[in-house]
Amino acid sequence: MSKTIAINAGSSSLKWQLYQMPEETVIAKGLIERIGLPESVSTVSFEGDKHVTVKNIHNHTEAVAILMNDLKNLNIIAHFSEITGTGHRVVAGGELFKDSVLITNEVANQIEALSDLAPLHNPANAAGIYAFCALLPEATHVAVFDTAFHSTMPAVAYRYPVPNEYYDKYAVRKYGAHGTSHMYVAQKAAECLGKAPEELKLITAHIGNGGSLTAIDGGKSVDTSMGFTPLAGVMMGTRTGELDASIIPYIMTKTGITDVAEVIDIFNKKSGLAGISEISSDMRDIISACEAGDEKAKLAFDMYINRLQKYIGQYLAVLNGADALVFTAGIGENSDVVRKAVVDGLSWFGLDIDESKNVFGADGIISTPDAKVKVLVIPTDEELVIARDVEKFKALA
Amino acid sequence: MSKTIAINAGSSSLKWQLYQMPEETVIAKGLIERIGLPESVSTVSFEGDKHVTVKNIHNHTEAVAILMNDLKNLNIIAHFSEITGTGHRVVAGGELFKDSVLITNEVANQIEALSDLAPLHNPANAAGIYAFCALLPEATHVAVFDTAFHSTMPAVAYRYPVPNEYYDKYAVRKYGAHGTSHMYVAQKAAECLGKAPEELKLITAHIGNGGSLTAIDGGKSVDTSMGFTPLAGVMMGTRTGELDASIIPYIMTKTGITDVAEVIDIFNKKSGLAGISEISSDMRDIISACEAGDEKAKLAFDMYINRLQKYIGQYLAVLNGADALVFTAGIGENSDVVRKAVVDGLSWFGLDIDESKNVFGADGIISTPDAKVKVLVIPTDEELVIARDVEKFKALA
Repeated sequence: MSKTIAINAGSSSLKWQLYQMPEETVIAKGLIERIGLPESVSTVSFEGDKHVTVKNIHNHTEAVAILMNDLKNLNIIAHFSEITGTGHRVVAGGELFKDSVLITNEVANQIEALSDLAPLHNPANAAGIYAFCALLPEATHVAVFDTAFHSTMPAVAYRYPVPNEYYDKYAVRKYGAHGTSHMYVAQKAAECLGKAPEELKLITAHIGNGGSLTAIDGGKSVDTSMGFTPLAGVMMGTRTGELDASIIPYIMTKTGITDVAEVIDIFNKKSGLAGISEISSDMRDIISACEAGDEKAKLAFDMYINRLQKYIGQYLAVLNGADALVFTAGIGENSDVVRKAVVDGLSWFGLDIDESKNVFGADGIISTPDAKVKVLVIPTDEELVIARDVEKFKALA
Repeated sequence: MSKTIAINAGSSSLKWQLYQMPEETVIAKGLIERIGLPESVSTVSFEGDKHVTVKNIHNHTEAVAILMNDLKNLNIIAHFSEITGTGHRVVAGGELFKDSVLITNEVANQIEALSDLAPLHNPANAAGIYAFCALLPEATHVAVFDTAFHSTMPAVAYRYPVPNEYYDKYAVRKYGAHGTSHMYVAQKAAECLGKAPEELKLITAHIGNGGSLTAIDGGKSVDTSMGFTPLAGVMMGTRTGELDASIIPYIMTKTGITDVAEVIDIFNKKSGLAGISEISSDMRDIISACEAGDEKAKLAFDMYINRLQKYIGQYLAVLNGADALVFTAGIGENSDVVRKAVVDGLSWFGLDIDESKNVFGADGIISTPDAKVKVLVIPTDEELVIARDVEKFKALA
C-alpha cells in the first residue's frame, strides 16, 4: 500500500491527483493555475471539500513545494516520504521515448532538450520533474509521454512529404498527442466490446478544447490527426487544424504581420470555433448560440462536425474499415449533440446511434444493435494510466 | 462551321488547341515553352508533323503573335479572321466568376486584378487574353475558370477555421482547381454509368503532376482537395499537400531561411514525390525505382497512395457514400499500378478492381460487376470543354 501522485504540468499550470495504490483510489486532487502570473491560484479537493489559496507562485519549482506543503498542512499526508511514486505527463517524447521510463538525471535532461518540439510544455514538465526529484529523493519517478502511444505509427503516416533533410536533420515528422488517452479508451472499448485489443480496429476521438483522432489497429496507433505540433488535425476550440500553408505569406502581406510565429499563434489561439463563431471556444456556448439562431455559431458548429467526419472517413480508409468509433474527453464524453451530428452524417458506413443511449453521462456502447461500426463513449482517465505506469516501475525497483 | 482556339497559358508557357467547331475536330495543337527565358521553344503539331522553332520569346503577347503567324505560315489558316472564337483557361476566378464569361475589357481587368490569388497564372492568362483580343477584334473571346465548377461548394467546405476577417477582408477561402476537368469527367462518368449526373455521388481524382480530388453530389462540386492555392490537398509530384503549418517557423529557425515565401516555394517545388524519393517528381520514375528496390522511392509511393486513400475516405464521409470513383489526368489515366494500389486498400468500402480491365489505355468502368462503389478511368479533355463554352457564346452573339 503506497501513495502515488500523477502530475500534468502545463505552461502556467500544474494539475495533480494523489492515488492510493494499488487500490487506485483517488485520495485528493488539485490544480495550480496562473503560475508565473500575479495571484496564482491553488485548489485542493479533499474529502468533499475544496481548499483555495491565492498567492504569487513564480515558477513550477515553487508550485511543487506549495503543493507538497498543502498536502501536509491539510493532513492528507503526514510525511513527504509517504509518497513513494510520482508520474509525470510529458508532452513531447520525440523519437527518443517510445514508452514510459524511470526518470534518471539523464532522462530529465533529455526531456528538457526536447523543448524544441513543445516549447510551452516540456520546460514545465522538466521543472516539475526536477522539483519532485529534489523533494522526494527516495521515490520512484516516472515519465509518461503523450507521444509514446503513437510511436508505432508507420513512416507512411508520420513522414511529411517535405524534403528529407527536414526529417533527417531536424526531426520534422508527425508525433501526435493525447496518446495516453487514446490508449486508455481503446483498451476500455475493447473490454466493453468483449474482445481483445489485438482483434479490433478502432477510431478514437479525443475531443475537448484541443482534439485528436487516432486510427488504432490491433491495439496500436497507426495514424493520428495531431502532427508535428497540436495545431494540426481537426478544427478545435481555438485551433485551425490543417490548412493550406500558402495562406500564411498571403495573410502576412495583407495584414502587415512580419513574424510568421505570430500567424501560427493566431492559428493556435484565435481560430477554430472561437474564430468562426466570434462567441466562444467552448462547444456548450456554440450549441446554445446555435439554438438561439446565431448564424456564425451555426457555421462554426457545422465546420467542426464536418472536420470530424472527414477524419473518421480518412481513418476508415487507413484501417480499411473499423469495428468501432470511440468518443472521449470534454466534448466527446458530454455532448450528445456533437456525437449525434457526427454519426448521423455517416450512415452509409454503417454507423448508427441509439438515441436512447446517446445521453448525458453515457458510458459504453451507444449504437444500435445492428450498427456495422459500433459507437462508444468512454470517459478518459490519463491520470490513472500515469499512476499505473508508476506502479509498474515500483514493482521493478 | 468555324474555328475556335483553346488557350491554356502558364507562367512561362502557352498551350493551345485549334478546333473545327461544332464538329469538335482538332485541326492542330501546340505548346510554347520557356517564355521569358532564352531559347523559347514553340512546337506545332499539324497533320501528323511536328514543327519546332527555337527563338527568344519575351512575353505572352509575343507568344500569341508568333503562334498566330505560325498558323498562317504552316497554312493551317489562310486569314486570322477564320478563327472566330478563343477560349482561355483562367486559373483564379475568385468569388467573382462562378461560370464561363464573355470577355469584355472589364472582365479582362478583373482577371488581372485577381492575380493576388494566382500570382504566377492570372497575369499570364490576362496577357494572353489581351493579345488575342487585339489580334482578333471580331472574334468571340471567352474565359473559362478553373475554379468555377467549385463555386457550388457550401461554406462548411470552403471556409477555413481562421478569424473571420481573413475571409471578409482578404477572401481567404478554399477555391480549388482543375474544375473544368472534374466537371468533364463527372459528366462522362455519368454517361458511362447510364445515369443522370443529378442521380450520382462521385469522387473524381484528377491526378497528374499536380492533383486534386473532388466530391461531387448530383453534378455539383461540394468539396475539393486543393485550397486557397494548389499547394493544399493530396501529396503531388513536387508539392506537399496539407501539413501542420507549425512546421514553417520551426524550419525557418533551423535552416536560417528568413522569408516565409521561400519555405512555401520549397513546399511547392521541392517536396512531394520528388522530396521523399530524391529521384523524380514523375510517378513513372518512382515506380521504376520501386521495382529496382529503392527504399526512398517505395516510401514516396506508399505516402502518395496513402494520401489519395485518405482523401477518398474523407469524401466518402462528406458525401455519406458514393456511386463511383473516377480516375483521370496523367497518373489517373495511365497508371494501373497507382489505381490498383489505391483501390486494393479500400475493399471495406466495396471498391473492387477488375484486373483484366485495369490496363494501360483503360477507358470506362474498371471495377468488378459486384463492386458497391464503381471505379472508372475517364481521359480528361479540358480543351474540349473550353471550345464548347466558346461555342455557346458564339451562338448567343
